[in-house]
Amino acid sequence: MYGVIMAGGRGVRFWPMSRGKRPKHLLDILGAKTLIQETVHRILPIIPPERILIVTAAAHAEELMRQLPEIPPANVLVEPVGRNTAPCIGLAALALMKKDPDAVMALLPADHRIDHDDLLRRMLSAAEAVAADGSTLVTIGIPPTFPSTGYGYLEQGDPKTSPAAMAVYHVRSIREKPDYEQARAFLSTGRFLWNSGMFIWKASTILAAMARWLPDIHGGLMDIDRAMGTPEATGVTERVYRGMRAISIDYGVMEKAENVVVIPGDLGWSDVGSWDTIWELASKDGQGNAARDPEWLVAVDAQDNLLQVQGKLVALVGVRDLLVVETEDALLICRRGISQDIRKIVDILEHKKMNGYL
Amino acid sequence: MYGVIMAGGRGVRFWPMSRGKRPKHLLDILGAKTLIQETVHRILPIIPPERILIVTAAAHAEELMRQLPEIPPANVLVEPVGRNTAPCIGLAALALMKKDPDAVMALLPADHRIDHDDLLRRMLSAAEAVAADGSTLVTIGIPPTFPSTGYGYLEQGDPKTSPAAMAVYHVRSIREKPDYEQARAFLSTGRFLWNSGMFIWKASTILAAMARWLPDIHGGLMDIDRAMGTPEATGVTERVYRGMRAISIDYGVMEKAENVVVIPGDLGWSDVGSWDTIWELASKDGQGNAARDPEWLVAVDAQDNLLQVQGKLVALVGVRDLLVVETEDALLICRRGISQDIRKIVDILEHKKMNGYL
Repeated sequence: MYGVIMAGGRGVRFWPMSRGKRPKHLLDILGAKTLIQETVHRILPIIPPERILIVTAAAHAEELMRQLPEIPPANVLVEPVGRNTAPCIGLAALALMKKDPDAVMALLPADHRIDHDDLLRRMLSAAEAVAADGSTLVTIGIPPTFPSTGYGYLEQGDPKTSPAAMAVYHVRSIREKPDYEQARAFLSTGRFLWNSGMFIWKASTILAAMARWLPDIHGGLMDIDRAMGTPEATGVTERVYRGMRAISIDYGVMEKAENVVVIPGDLGWSDVGSWDTIWELASKDGQGNAARDPEWLVAVDAQDNLLQVQGKLVALVGVRDLLVVETEDALLICRRGISQDIRKIVDILEHKKMNGYL
Repeated sequence: MYGVIMAGGRGVRFWPMSRGKRPKHLLDILGAKTLIQETVHRILPIIPPERILIVTAAAHAEELMRQLPEIPPANVLVEPVGRNTAPCIGLAALALMKKDPDAVMALLPADHRIDHDDLLRRMLSAAEAVAADGSTLVTIGIPPTFPSTGYGYLEQGDPKTSPAAMAVYHVRSIREKPDYEQARAFLSTGRFLWNSGMFIWKASTILAAMARWLPDIHGGLMDIDRAMGTPEATGVTERVYRGMRAISIDYGVMEKAENVVVIPGDLGWSDVGSWDTIWELASKDGQGNAARDPEWLVAVDAQDNLLQVQGKLVALVGVRDLLVVETEDALLICRRGISQDIRKIVDILEHKKMNGYL
């Protein structure tokens, strides 16, 4: 099995810490390691570094390689431009086909959080066993713990017999992010799982599925494939990739394909979608304050705040529900619960051409 | 007339900007100049620098002289220890008596704000004319604009005939900081003025009043006076001053004396008591946000905040009524309206012996 880390994200929602040059997966917002380091180190016990590919943007490749010296530089695939997950996965599948026409690929987002690493490794190994015959597209499903409107859902169908050591189910349907009422209805049935965005399949299987459901993108990939190894490779890839439409693998393939299966597992998973999520995931003191350096927090009647401030004392007096994030050149203070509006700050900065802060 | 600037304050309420080494009057919290620079520059048109004395603590003398190069170093009197205003004023009166037994002194707190400098100068000149015969203790009274519970009040009595070009009144009583109901009652009479803490009198007059109302302190001052010019001067001053009780001139003399008069004037005055006051005094944008550097504030649905942050972008999302103060080593976020509780942060830091932040 090969690991393919999708590291194309920009991470506007984590401004001011995330920037054009430093997207979310390259940040250590949840601990000592960056999210991509966590992602890679999590699978190293079952996939050696020479079998791990990372797809990323040119602007991030250098820092990414610095953070992951164990990954051979040749394994870092640079997308000419971001086109969502379908083209990215197609490009990785092409690259793997050259190495091994029977390759099974485990696709992992670079910037998610998983608490139970060992369970993930067992699930990936089980998924490899299921995917090896090339007949299915395997997903990892998370039993939902609340009616999230921020995640997609997988509707679990009948059990599938498989050679894997874990339970595997057919997927009856795949649902986009629901509204709150719909999410509650999903949970009440007990049949829905969060779509973790982790997929396991043979490279040949996903390329065949793209040929059927995304023929335009597949055609582009074939153009790139033909140019590979010729002097025109870079130019063709650049031109063709730019011409592709941006579409997710979920919307482009998974929602249509009939051979999708799921392995459910309670991974302690989060897509780490916003600063609000960071507060939820962080360890907090008795007053609900989550400080990066708790010994540098002095609080009087302060509750439920997130303090992402480094190298300085933070004193809070009578404030609650604040997300406070400081970098060398910017200080953000956002009401907890509305961190999606941080995007508006980024929009203003773009509009004002304050590029140094982007 | 001599100017005597009282610069003994510690300014805990302006933490983290004010520190042991940098009290409020040495800070530029209201503009380009520090409060003591404003105070001195305000009276320079009527009192030359060689006639301006400043009483301060040893720890602040060097920075003070750096900020006020026009003041002769010999005019900076160092208090061995802070003992509130009565001993401080007595020490300055002694020093002036040596220079000029007929000296009139204008006492000015170093850390207040005054909008109408020219009016103040005219009031001080009028006060000098009143005080010159040595019969009265002249105060400056401010017509109150709201029922403040943070200021003392002067009860205005009958007009007094005087050689001054401005109206002068007897003071019927002096009141400590009232509670809210009492403050409202004061305002409804139209007879009460805020006690600005600015006093004008002959050095000999206040020393005589202290001999009567504060005989213990006056006795100590006489001990110091006798030692002046002898080899024991420093040692005696140090020992005697430390032994004095701390008491304000208002409580120790003014509330008891019968020869207090007042010149009222709408000076646009504030004692600049807290970060809350700074927000009130600061110029604000249409949303009530007062930023030190407005061009570095990016706000989305943010109202009535104070931003004392330098050299960095501040982004606010959905927050209101915050006092945000940042220094190189500390970040304070305090709910507006309760900035008196910043003292509790300082208490915690003292208790934890985090002296670097004090």
